[in-house]
Amino acid sequence: MKINQFAYVPTDHAQIINELKDVRFLTPKTEKMSDPVMLFRQFLMKFFMEKQGHSTRIYKLSTIMATPDEDANEYTKTEPKVEKNAFYNIALQLLQFEVGLDFNLDEPLKKMNELGLPVADVADTLTVGELIDAWYLLLNTRTKFGQTLIDYLAGQGFFAQMGTDESLKAPLFFNGKSQAVFNTQKVIREVVYVEAPQDNDNDGKLDLIKVEVLRPAETDEGVVVPAVLTESPYDQGTNDDSADKLTHDVNGELKRKEPNNFTYDDIKFVPEHKPLPAPRKIESTTETAEETFTKTWTYPLNDYLLSHGFAVVYSSGVGTKDSDGFRTTGDEDETISTTAVIEWLNHKRTAFTNRTDNVAIEAWWSNGNVGMTGRSYLGTLANAAALSGVEGLKTAVVEAGISNWYDYYRENGLVVAPGGFQGEDADILAELTFSRKQEATDYVKTKDEWAKRLKEIEAGEDRDTGNYNRFWDRRNYLNHDNIKADILLVHGLNDWNVKPSHAFNLRNLIKNDDITLKTVLHQGQHEYLHNFRSVDFTDMVNLWLVNKLYGVDNGANTVLPDVLVQDNVTEQTWTPEKDWGDNHNVKQYQLDDNWLTNVNGNTEFSNHMNDDDFKVFSKDTAQWRSELYKLDESKTDGSAIKLISQEMSADTTIDGQIKVSLNAKSDHDFGALSVAVVDYGTAKRLTPTPTILDRMRIFTGFNWRKDDLREFTYQDKETEFKKITDGHINMQNRENSYKVDDLKANESYQIEFALEPTFFRIAKGHKLGILIFSSDLDFTVKSNQDIKYAIDLSKSSIDLPLL
Amino acid sequence: MKINQFAYVPTDHAQIINELKDVRFLTPKTEKMSDPVMLFRQFLMKFFMEKQGHSTRIYKLSTIMATPDEDANEYTKTEPKVEKNAFYNIALQLLQFEVGLDFNLDEPLKKMNELGLPVADVADTLTVGELIDAWYLLLNTRTKFGQTLIDYLAGQGFFAQMGTDESLKAPLFFNGKSQAVFNTQKVIREVVYVEAPQDNDNDGKLDLIKVEVLRPAETDEGVVVPAVLTESPYDQGTNDDSADKLTHDVNGELKRKEPNNFTYDDIKFVPEHKPLPAPRKIESTTETAEETFTKTWTYPLNDYLLSHGFAVVYSSGVGTKDSDGFRTTGDEDETISTTAVIEWLNHKRTAFTNRTDNVAIEAWWSNGNVGMTGRSYLGTLANAAALSGVEGLKTAVVEAGISNWYDYYRENGLVVAPGGFQGEDADILAELTFSRKQEATDYVKTKDEWAKRLKEIEAGEDRDTGNYNRFWDRRNYLNHDNIKADILLVHGLNDWNVKPSHAFNLRNLIKNDDITLKTVLHQGQHEYLHNFRSVDFTDMVNLWLVNKLYGVDNGANTVLPDVLVQDNVTEQTWTPEKDWGDNHNVKQYQLDDNWLTNVNGNTEFSNHMNDDDFKVFSKDTAQWRSELYKLDESKTDGSAIKLISQEMSADTTIDGQIKVSLNAKSDHDFGALSVAVVDYGTAKRLTPTPTILDRMRIFTGFNWRKDDLREFTYQDKETEFKKITDGHINMQNRENSYKVDDLKANESYQIEFALEPTFFRIAKGHKLGILIFSSDLDFTVKSNQDIKYAIDLSKSSIDLPLL
Repeated sequence: MKINQFAYVPTDHAQIINELKDVRFLTPKTEKMSDPVMLFRQFLMKFFMEKQGHSTRIYKLSTIMATPDEDANEYTKTEPKVEKNAFYNIALQLLQFEVGLDFNLDEPLKKMNELGLPVADVADTLTVGELIDAWYLLLNTRTKFGQTLIDYLAGQGFFAQMGTDESLKAPLFFNGKSQAVFNTQKVIREVVYVEAPQDNDNDGKLDLIKVEVLRPAETDEGVVVPAVLTESPYDQGTNDDSADKLTHDVNGELKRKEPNNFTYDDIKFVPEHKPLPAPRKIESTTETAEETFTKTWTYPLNDYLLSHGFAVVYSSGVGTKDSDGFRTTGDEDETISTTAVIEWLNHKRTAFTNRTDNVAIEAWWSNGNVGMTGRSYLGTLANAAALSGVEGLKTAVVEAGISNWYDYYRENGLVVAPGGFQGEDADILAELTFSRKQEATDYVKTKDEWAKRLKEIEAGEDRDTGNYNRFWDRRNYLNHDNIKADILLVHGLNDWNVKPSHAFNLRNLIKNDDITLKTVLHQGQHEYLHNFRSVDFTDMVNLWLVNKLYGVDNGANTVLPDVLVQDNVTEQTWTPEKDWGDNHNVKQYQLDDNWLTNVNGNTEFSNHMNDDDFKVFSKDTAQWRSELYKLDESKTDGSAIKLISQEMSADTTIDGQIKVSLNAKSDHDFGALSVAVVDYGTAKRLTPTPTILDRMRIFTGFNWRKDDLREFTYQDKETEFKKITDGHINMQNRENSYKVDDLKANESYQIEFALEPTFFRIAKGHKLGILIFSSDLDFTVKSNQDIKYAIDLSKSSIDLPLL
Repeated sequence: MKINQFAYVPTDHAQIINELKDVRFLTPKTEKMSDPVMLFRQFLMKFFMEKQGHSTRIYKLSTIMATPDEDANEYTKTEPKVEKNAFYNIALQLLQFEVGLDFNLDEPLKKMNELGLPVADVADTLTVGELIDAWYLLLNTRTKFGQTLIDYLAGQGFFAQMGTDESLKAPLFFNGKSQAVFNTQKVIREVVYVEAPQDNDNDGKLDLIKVEVLRPAETDEGVVVPAVLTESPYDQGTNDDSADKLTHDVNGELKRKEPNNFTYDDIKFVPEHKPLPAPRKIESTTETAEETFTKTWTYPLNDYLLSHGFAVVYSSGVGTKDSDGFRTTGDEDETISTTAVIEWLNHKRTAFTNRTDNVAIEAWWSNGNVGMTGRSYLGTLANAAALSGVEGLKTAVVEAGISNWYDYYRENGLVVAPGGFQGEDADILAELTFSRKQEATDYVKTKDEWAKRLKEIEAGEDRDTGNYNRFWDRRNYLNHDNIKADILLVHGLNDWNVKPSHAFNLRNLIKNDDITLKTVLHQGQHEYLHNFRSVDFTDMVNLWLVNKLYGVDNGANTVLPDVLVQDNVTEQTWTPEKDWGDNHNVKQYQLDDNWLTNVNGNTEFSNHMNDDDFKVFSKDTAQWRSELYKLDESKTDGSAIKLISQEMSADTTIDGQIKVSLNAKSDHDFGALSVAVVDYGTAKRLTPTPTILDRMRIFTGFNWRKDDLREFTYQDKETEFKKITDGHINMQNRENSYKVDDLKANESYQIEFALEPTFFRIAKGHKLGILIFSSDLDFTVKSNQDIKYAIDLSKSSIDLPLL
């Protein structure tokens, strides 16, 4: 077990004293204590909550051992001093580590170190000052169950017991992070309708967008808070069945494309500037909403933030239930319905209490600063909003967000699916999220128009060519960088759904902008990080948002690492890095280099496999992939070139984008190439989806949502190989994804392309594999056409960006 | 999709009017309305909650379609009458069914019928009286997401909006069920320590048992409520690692046992009557607890009950954290620490506010009536308490409870594991639940004594012989039937962990007692039922507990079916039955009957398999089982007799315990036999664990716990066979499980034993398979000894109990 903390802010003694007063561990009484033992006892008694009876707290104290022979009650009653060992024996138990199971009472410091927990710099016997510092550090140390001790205490009712009597600060900042002092039993839930500057449904009225606000009850008492917006098109319901039915057939064939001479200008999207309808006339204004709501799913990180003094706002955008308009899968109207909400929260746009009466309601409880959270489509719209430069958006925590929709559904002139979603496309996602149809009246009213719009999306996405076109250019957020918000970018290095290039390209676009950018790269696929034991992601977000939204000078920009990468070899290991893919150290190998062995001796291969094998593999692509990666005899021997390196003589880390240059020919006048780079070596590897370590152990507030503790753990069994990265290209898109080149059968072309960026440690003794093939059954059209390819390895190369 | 409701109580019109007044749909104003359209509109406006603005509610009304052309707002404003079709179009939408996806607006009644939803007996045009009746029925109808509409409304804040102003009744009974009118934001959580009449740790003091109480805040205002106790030894934490380490090796060999001549008296457990220590002297009394708590896991059914007016009490018993004593895995001390809590709730036993001060606290908020809930070990202790006849326990909902610990870890003189827990035993479960060791002081203090006690349990359980002995007799709850509580028994027909015989044997023991007994048999394994769509289990429990604990004459005993069985062939189908295994129709077949074909022609078989196969199979028992069940060539051909029946000419239901009588010999002087009965036929079969249909869609109260909607659905693929039941016997335990008989090599014996009871429909065209073999890698010792068995099929028979 290893615990890594990145959100702890080094704090000086004077500040510690102030903060311990704020949380009531130091009081007029305890402050004056000169005996560290007495003070320690007082701290512990307070830890067990003064609302509980004295005897109850004494008993709790007595259940904890201070030394191998003495419990904490006796110790603090009878011993003359606080020894460092006793302090940390007790500390470990308060942090919920078990004697016997997790550690032994004679070696607490060893255990603290092993776990990666911080130990205060104190003498073997603690002075009062040292005790205060050590206690402060302990409160900011993470428990066995994935939260700081002070958060755990809050979850037990530590702050709630004080009620309003003790005039606790709200918000209350402790070690730079906002604390769970807000009463979650009284959260206010209200709906407003923002009038967005768009008329997506062309009805001559600005679109109304439904917004669900959860704000601390304390805002009714005058506390002003920032807001965290999660823009989730899924949130008002999804049309799973009808979307499934639209799934495109991927059992097709690769086809020749007519060459064109397109330049970017030919496919550039230029927005039409339609005049907008006039805003509604405001009939009256109010501070009181008239609609409330309940929710099914909420983002646990948001629930945590709510108890910690942030309002949480959910909105789903144009075309979702109770809003106007239609879904567009990523065009500017989805961005505008997002930024309109931000503008309302920033006091610059109108919202109404309902859809009919034009009674305006301000976000009067909001301090005007807005952050965004959420993963996948949610993170995507955070990207969209951030790059739009909307006022009021101070930061976005972008988790696995799309930065360019072409890269989500296409690649280098090919239809390349998001992993796990073969046959999905922009039209299907639009249908999935068009939740307006879940209300019968809207369903009946919009049916025909929606069918027409879906057809337009289907035509625009153009599965026939896979080319980048005006439709996709319109949905490329990277085209416009007006960013003003600081960004905390989070992405899974094994995310084959929203692939790492989305984060990588966004990062490269904005990293020299005048903003603060932080990046967290984990070893999962499409996953959230807020409930992991090995990393204090939630605390990092707290520190970050306090800085960005509360404007507290808590050092977030310097304390948090610029790039934090989870190691792929050793579990629970997170390492700060300076950059990602800085390209300072690129090593090029020719593919006929002695370092590489051609496993099956091929320089040619056919896309065709035995029909029976193909049938099995196209239904069970995991089996195909495993066969493809096998280096001994395999059913894919005829359909791939497999190169394998010598053993790594030392750990080697690939940092960034691998590029390949292949001298290739097809025996048809069209062709597609795939390249996978694979780590070979028997090893325990991490699960790409988190394992639940313990259910409902994380308290996001007092009598509030409980969360499961999770982690990417080692898989049960050792495996032989693992994909590092891959890439795909249509040989007719050699120059770019919109210009279609001619391809002559049996003629050689130099095909260059980049694979998905990664950060991957190839362990010493492992080998690097390079596989060249055509159809990728997980991603491309599932074709079994007999197309033969040849690669001149002497004229082909790979560029490895090394750390 | 099918929805089955069993907890609806037929209610007359006068009573309906009273109840609709109680929930405020009828008010002094609406009561007088003579126009059904106006009244309908009022009902709908109230449905959308009067706390919300008028326009908001009108808008909601307008999102619903009443006819294919008219929305509910227009309809109730302009139409002269309420048509039945319009009513049910609206009804389906209020029940959250979607137009287009789930039903069409021209055929609502057809859909109601298809879904199994009740339709009021009203004319095509509703009178006011009919509208009232139909609205009442609708409020008591289940939504698409597994709860009654009135429960859904409560979850939206319907009752909460009324606050205390409208002097809602609390408790409020509606259609015989208690409603979610209790304020879950203010639940009181307090700890007491019950002084149990036992001294398990022999310290000369009665054992204190920690009890966690969650009670409605309304109890502080004078509402008196019943309590639901869940006695869970897991609840204070489990020692997973140290318990795992104790796992017994099951890669052993079957051994000959020395014959004995034991009668029951030789192994009967006779309790020692040790005098108990004197109770503690009560120093003072109080009504105020001094310790509070938070919980990680809670039982969602309990959370539901809490919002519906029941206090919920958790206790873990002797040997768990913060209680005295040691774990015993099922002996009378675990029963006593359970019943002591019930006695406290029944005002007949003392509890203290803490472990030291002897300040007594009564359960003054309790009406004295106690129910129990919980599955597995939790249900086990409910069995133990119920059979003890403890005063105050009015009912137990026993879910997958053990009724005899021998049947959990042993069978007919063999060590037979609970499914999925090979190598577990009573000692390991004791270690797992001894959560006292999680507190360092207790860990240090009890280490030696606990090691000694564990050794005693290990000796007592006697894995060497697998015989029933004094240790197990002590843990056989079926020995003593003092039952006074009504029982709602719930068990999975595919539960191979706590096998169906536990429920079957308990049922047979108590079914003629002077209590009410209800039984629910589902198609899952070891599962809860509270969040299924196809069955209103939670409502049944509500109705049941209101009757038993609130003493309301709501007809629960007659409304609820005596035996409710989920069908194994058709999903979402639940059928009331009169009894389970009444043995009125037993059909006997000789095993050489023409009806049966001997598939591999064996009358002999060896326990030994090819060593390589055995190695693979003993690691992957699913593979072994699949091989064993295969009727074509199989690696188990030499180690089993496989008999298969002719095709069933009609659906045939096995109801109860299949018995076999085998004329068998072993070529050793010991031997063990296994028999499995298998359903053969290609079919989609149900998942034994529930599928999550929808996350967090069930509201167990307002701003309270959300629960996932689940169901046993069809597996993705058709399967060829499925185990119906099985059984195992040591040939030296021919008479019973404690008397060891001699066995001579190569001599024939008639071996009779019963298989696990079941309720299984063999579909027309399917075949029944009977497999006879020895080692069962999932359950018995994994032996590959070369023991040869022969069965004289002409002298062997099977008894099939048919419905």
